[in-house]
Amino acid sequence: MGLLVVGSVALDSVFTPFGETADALGGSAVYFSVAGSLLTPVRVVGVVGKDFPTAELDALATRGIDWSGVAHADGESFRWKGKYSYDLQSRETLETRLGVFADFDPRLPDGFRDASYVFLGNIDPELQLSVLKQVRTPRLIACDTMNYWISSKREQVLELLSRVDILMVNDTEARELSGDWNIHRAGRWILDRGPKRVVIKQGEYGAILVEPGRTFYVPAFPLEEVFDPTGAGDAFAGGFLGYLARTGQASDEAMRRAMVYGATMGSYAVAGFGVKGFERVELGHVLERVRKFVDLTHVPMAERIE
Amino acid sequence: MGLLVVGSVALDSVFTPFGETADALGGSAVYFSVAGSLLTPVRVVGVVGKDFPTAELDALATRGIDWSGVAHADGESFRWKGKYSYDLQSRETLETRLGVFADFDPRLPDGFRDASYVFLGNIDPELQLSVLKQVRTPRLIACDTMNYWISSKREQVLELLSRVDILMVNDTEARELSGDWNIHRAGRWILDRGPKRVVIKQGEYGAILVEPGRTFYVPAFPLEEVFDPTGAGDAFAGGFLGYLARTGQASDEAMRRAMVYGATMGSYAVAGFGVKGFERVELGHVLERVRKFVDLTHVPMAERIE
Repeated sequence: MGLLVVGSVALDSVFTPFGETADALGGSAVYFSVAGSLLTPVRVVGVVGKDFPTAELDALATRGIDWSGVAHADGESFRWKGKYSYDLQSRETLETRLGVFADFDPRLPDGFRDASYVFLGNIDPELQLSVLKQVRTPRLIACDTMNYWISSKREQVLELLSRVDILMVNDTEARELSGDWNIHRAGRWILDRGPKRVVIKQGEYGAILVEPGRTFYVPAFPLEEVFDPTGAGDAFAGGFLGYLARTGQASDEAMRRAMVYGATMGSYAVAGFGVKGFERVELGHVLERVRKFVDLTHVPMAERIE
Repeated sequence: MGLLVVGSVALDSVFTPFGETADALGGSAVYFSVAGSLLTPVRVVGVVGKDFPTAELDALATRGIDWSGVAHADGESFRWKGKYSYDLQSRETLETRLGVFADFDPRLPDGFRDASYVFLGNIDPELQLSVLKQVRTPRLIACDTMNYWISSKREQVLELLSRVDILMVNDTEARELSGDWNIHRAGRWILDRGPKRVVIKQGEYGAILVEPGRTFYVPAFPLEEVFDPTGAGDAFAGGFLGYLARTGQASDEAMRRAMVYGATMGSYAVAGFGVKGFERVELGHVLERVRKFVDLTHVPMAERIE
């Protein structure tokens, strides 16, 4: 039972045209769990250094996030520093200090091994594969990856693809992985490697769910203010899997609804620096935004088309 | 009654990574009418030179396009030559020869002045305004414009905005017009200048319909092969207004359906060089693709959201 995420727990320093943060709570597992915990309890596996402000994690525990799978290792916590362009469309990594994350070896506490819904955040594909060996009877496994692993550990990424249900990547990653610039052909290429579904995220343009013979599209929420795109993809994954875990569903129809919950969480992520976009967000707000999302693409076609 | 378009009738030479054309039939009024005529008869006002291959226009007349408002002037026809980037995301104009289009002064034949649905293609805003004086009791007026007019004839563009129902532009134009990079704020800025609605086209990412307090999103059709984006925006306009003229509608719901018909026509436009993407396309195909579009964003939310 339950929802599990394995990924980074980090300290981010982000510069955007609208402000900046220094050593703010971040990392894929944090964004995923902050979003997902609005829908269902989330268990996290990760690692932090002795310098980590654990009080911030403790504060989030009250939302239903179980941090007991996060190891505390000797050394510095994972830090990332990045700068966004004026239109937030691209970013440059200024500094990556892996610290204790360099030797991360995910170990699931016994109580976590019965997880039904599993998200493998963007870490070394060999570690993602090792997590798969530790979960007993997962119902649905989704994973992320990035250009670094696609080029440096391609074989392991392909091995991973043959073992997961859903790959969730951004369009650049889908193109690099498949070697095809056309996003729909890229999606089909990935499907041919094993996953039943591919979610391709396109930032401010929304996200696509590619399935054999069928495609679903969810736009990004129309926001007049966007502050910090960091973590939007992981928040999307948290909403997506959080919805499925909450409802215990895995049908085609549920996947479409999960996409909308994912896009909803992505819209909160970008509305504030770090995880601040989620402050004061409660389940009622989420459901209200989901309804707005459904209206955003609703075509009133009840009448005969002619 | 009826649908009227005023715009360019041109000869395009287009280079893409997948092939090229030389002096092929093109121009905003051509793309608009080829698309729109799949749904309803279209009347065209434009100008060509003595060198124009009028047989190509005559062949299209059988589709229900009335070219009797196209003047034949002494001189060369309007020619445009452009080259697309490897991913078709950007293009460079290699040559523009206005020819007879430089002195274009749109004169509506008497029989055209009762048009109910009017599209003002991308021409000098002063000419667009002059067309508005010639139509008697239009029900809906939509117009396009471009960066060149936004910077060189800004006052006239703003005057035009105060007199049309719908502005249809791409995202770059909306940003340049409003001076705001956020597309949703840009849309609201434009609404404040007069139009009841703004359609912002985003190429392969689809198009947005911005209305006061409400937004609608239609994606682009998932195509595994795209050959030539030229004319997609005008084909979109032809589908949009063609649907409204065909059904005699102008309701909020009809506008959403019109967006889907617009996106459908855009998908045919990019599937072939010039207007070739429309070869062999019949109404039945259009309706079938419209159904697929509706499925593309359909969220099965009949059950209670929770």
